[in-house]
Amino acid sequence: MPHPMFEKHQALLQQAVAAIESRGYWSPYAENPRVYGDTAIEDGRKAFDAYRGAQFYLDQPGVVDRGGAEVSPYGLSLDISYPQCRVDALVAAAKTAMPGWVKAGADARAGVCLEILARLNARSFEMAHAVMHTTGQPLMMAFQAAGPHAQDRGLEAVAYAWREMKQVPQTALWEKPQGKNPPLKMEKKFSIVPRGVALVIACSTFPTWNGYPGIFASLVTGNPVIVKAHPTVILPLAISVAVARQVLKEAGFDPNLVSLLIDDPAAPVAKDVAMRPEVRLIDYTGGPDFGNWLEQNCRHAMVYTEKAGVNCIVVDSIDDYQGMLKNLAFTLSLYSGQMCTTPQSMFVSREGVNTPEGVVSAEQFGHDLANAVSKFLADPARAVEVLGAIQSPATLARLAAAHELGEVLRTSSAIPHPHWPAARVHSPLILKVDVADERAYMEERFGPISLVVETATTAQSLAMAERVIREQGAITFALYSTNPLMVEHAEDAALRAGVALSINLTGAVFVNQSAGFSDFHATGANPAANACLTDSAFVASRFFVVQSRRHV
Amino acid sequence: MPHPMFEKHQALLQQAVAAIESRGYWSPYAENPRVYGDTAIEDGRKAFDAYRGAQFYLDQPGVVDRGGAEVSPYGLSLDISYPQCRVDALVAAAKTAMPGWVKAGADARAGVCLEILARLNARSFEMAHAVMHTTGQPLMMAFQAAGPHAQDRGLEAVAYAWREMKQVPQTALWEKPQGKNPPLKMEKKFSIVPRGVALVIACSTFPTWNGYPGIFASLVTGNPVIVKAHPTVILPLAISVAVARQVLKEAGFDPNLVSLLIDDPAAPVAKDVAMRPEVRLIDYTGGPDFGNWLEQNCRHAMVYTEKAGVNCIVVDSIDDYQGMLKNLAFTLSLYSGQMCTTPQSMFVSREGVNTPEGVVSAEQFGHDLANAVSKFLADPARAVEVLGAIQSPATLARLAAAHELGEVLRTSSAIPHPHWPAARVHSPLILKVDVADERAYMEERFGPISLVVETATTAQSLAMAERVIREQGAITFALYSTNPLMVEHAEDAALRAGVALSINLTGAVFVNQSAGFSDFHATGANPAANACLTDSAFVASRFFVVQSRRHV
Repeated sequence: MPHPMFEKHQALLQQAVAAIESRGYWSPYAENPRVYGDTAIEDGRKAFDAYRGAQFYLDQPGVVDRGGAEVSPYGLSLDISYPQCRVDALVAAAKTAMPGWVKAGADARAGVCLEILARLNARSFEMAHAVMHTTGQPLMMAFQAAGPHAQDRGLEAVAYAWREMKQVPQTALWEKPQGKNPPLKMEKKFSIVPRGVALVIACSTFPTWNGYPGIFASLVTGNPVIVKAHPTVILPLAISVAVARQVLKEAGFDPNLVSLLIDDPAAPVAKDVAMRPEVRLIDYTGGPDFGNWLEQNCRHAMVYTEKAGVNCIVVDSIDDYQGMLKNLAFTLSLYSGQMCTTPQSMFVSREGVNTPEGVVSAEQFGHDLANAVSKFLADPARAVEVLGAIQSPATLARLAAAHELGEVLRTSSAIPHPHWPAARVHSPLILKVDVADERAYMEERFGPISLVVETATTAQSLAMAERVIREQGAITFALYSTNPLMVEHAEDAALRAGVALSINLTGAVFVNQSAGFSDFHATGANPAANACLTDSAFVASRFFVVQSRRHV
Repeated sequence: MPHPMFEKHQALLQQAVAAIESRGYWSPYAENPRVYGDTAIEDGRKAFDAYRGAQFYLDQPGVVDRGGAEVSPYGLSLDISYPQCRVDALVAAAKTAMPGWVKAGADARAGVCLEILARLNARSFEMAHAVMHTTGQPLMMAFQAAGPHAQDRGLEAVAYAWREMKQVPQTALWEKPQGKNPPLKMEKKFSIVPRGVALVIACSTFPTWNGYPGIFASLVTGNPVIVKAHPTVILPLAISVAVARQVLKEAGFDPNLVSLLIDDPAAPVAKDVAMRPEVRLIDYTGGPDFGNWLEQNCRHAMVYTEKAGVNCIVVDSIDDYQGMLKNLAFTLSLYSGQMCTTPQSMFVSREGVNTPEGVVSAEQFGHDLANAVSKFLADPARAVEVLGAIQSPATLARLAAAHELGEVLRTSSAIPHPHWPAARVHSPLILKVDVADERAYMEERFGPISLVVETATTAQSLAMAERVIREQGAITFALYSTNPLMVEHAEDAALRAGVALSINLTGAVFVNQSAGFSDFHATGANPAANACLTDSAFVASRFFVVQSRRHV
């Protein structure tokens, strides 16, 4: 008998599988706030407020203390404490929880995962406030990115993994002809066996969007998941874990299949838990240093990393110059450049930018871009709803120091937030450097820091962008060119560098946006990430196939 | 326009995809020698003889010398020399060859791979003699295992990889509704990008059966392949590489997409080439020491290993005692136990084996098994066609030393070969040890060495087998039991240990046989191998997906 949660969500799962096969537009979780009801924003705020100054309830084993010291980038003190659990207790509980989950099979596990996602969807505005006041994202972005878009990514991972598991038949009849003699006949059973305990190490900017693919890909393939939250961004994952545990319990499974692990920045535990031999899967989003360490040291586990990179733009020519500037102004402003997809190094040649109105010099382009950003952010009330707040004080320090890197085309300035006087809101810094000044633009400078890099020719722009991406990694690459040959060159460069290319974005699609079920986020082919969200490679190694055969 | 080789083989490829989806019996390459014509064996011998005392022709770059000093385990000196090429020349040529191969797309690449397999199939008896006189396999086994069965495994890998690539759409139209406004529309292109240069490090016993999956999985996904042959078993891979290069040339591709790398045992190159940063995929079959070294050190590459293990049998009860003995006698004799699937440690309890004729004591079982093997091998002319020859003198030395490990139930003796007086033919050694003597049975003893391990109960037999498999790895596990509860326990143990289970084999299927398109060979879940031949995980990480998007 199919599990009731599978029956409930089967149709949606089939649609999701169809979506990953066509990769057109599809989004099962509404991104329009109105769909969630007139009081959704306010209800979400109340739910969020209820966590403040309280003990977050999670009935996990091995509690030794309570921890958590989150402070909103908007200045609000959250004062929430979470259970701090012993790693060995979480690992032991995870292992104990496995057998029943494994035996339940792919359908039941997928049904439970989809029910978790449905419950998370219903709480998208509670999540929005939690994400806003931990990551600094503006509210509407936090709602979309951490709510429906993250849920899309979670479902996408479930769809890939479920399809992959279902492609293995559960049984087979093997019947080999023996000439005149009766055939040899065997009955074979094929079982999906999970790899082991999974660890998801989440980041401080997109805890759910980047965390859900690994969580759901591991969980649906039978692996218990320990979710290690960033010390400054715990609440969004605590809510996610609590929802998952509740659904697991209701579905008749051990809630310790999903647990939350927190630590103190002064006593980090991520390395210790990653090196546990029971941990066989690690999904990581964050800085390259720790990502590279995991890749180098965790030989006992499959390691999926999304680290950092230097996203590039090459500007050659455009038939809608103002459209391009507006598009770039939004792109550079969105969440103050704190996205792994925000462009940093923009290559433009001294030969200028060809437009229908004539050639725009590289210098003029820099000023026009700076002005476009300033104009876009002229109204502070509107500006803060795009910029959000700076998540980490380290980013502020980096931003301040970056002013020295080149000629300042647009200085970064603090913007007062109408509702949150202590919010860390700062507008984008735009610099101009020469292509010879590699030190300035060839390393990632996370935050609202962009550089216009002046080259000799567009050919050089393309060559340098390719080199930056191959050496430093990138998740996005954008080209503006009306020259079909140049587009072809850029496509070839993107294939060689293994980076997603966006061409001539002048409207309401932005290079830093990646749509679930359609855009592959990262490729695994350059240093920015060793995996893609989500493709078959992201899911196929999370389980094994074990067979049993006998004569019939 | 589809590539002509794809058109030619498309129907077969579709059948192969259907076969991996049902995993019933299917074998496109005939294992019946008669299908290959009355003169096939003799024609194959002539083709093989033509290589002897000659220079093997391969027009590879960077030739610095000629090498190769293969001596047949049957005593025949091959005296064949092969071009010895500089690693950097092969790597550079491989990289140069890539772009055209990548652009050709999945269909053309699959067509070329299937044409290579078709040509190899036509030369199966040439391969049979080449494999016989390098690995020591008996001729008919060499024909089947290195011919049609290896080709099955190659095609299986192509089918998995092709299906995985084809599941990524080449293009998509993304059309996002915008309320009353016209929808946002983008056209997206998705390209399959290979990981990089692939290295296949082959073994000395099954160079094609174990080598083809990696070679074809990497090649069809766009990666050029360097095939590193074992110094004592070069010819089978030299023929395979020559066929591949010829087909690539005819199809309009650079033959350096597949090249042969040889070395001298005194100056091994495998580590050097494996550590080249351009090498991004490594498939290895061989001893655990080097396999573990590759896993630990080659962080820049995906590493797929099949190493070694201690395959186990638990004997509890059986309704056809004589059938079981006959089956085991063949299993232990086939190719003198030089298979990664041959059982080594056979657990039987002091409570004895339940049979319809009564309880057989553990001691009696040991003697019965020894007698069954002796009876099966009584006719030397027949025996040598099953035993083949011992590939390596090291195995002979191991066999001699193993006589000290326990009570000898059946001593190993040299068997004169009627046609090859210098052949290294030796019958199986069977020992008996107590379960306490872990040193004896808990490590792999490659070759015709088996141990009957006496335990207190079948429950202990199962527990010890599970422990051996979890700690030492195993590719096969067999149970003889008429007790449904015991079968269930064994199935659970096999799932936990991640090993393929065969139950009550008393007829013409043997635990050491693994049928392409039906049996998953190894699982990746225990130390014997970190990958399975072939499942989705074996192919999915060999390529990346890179996208390009623009408005329409």
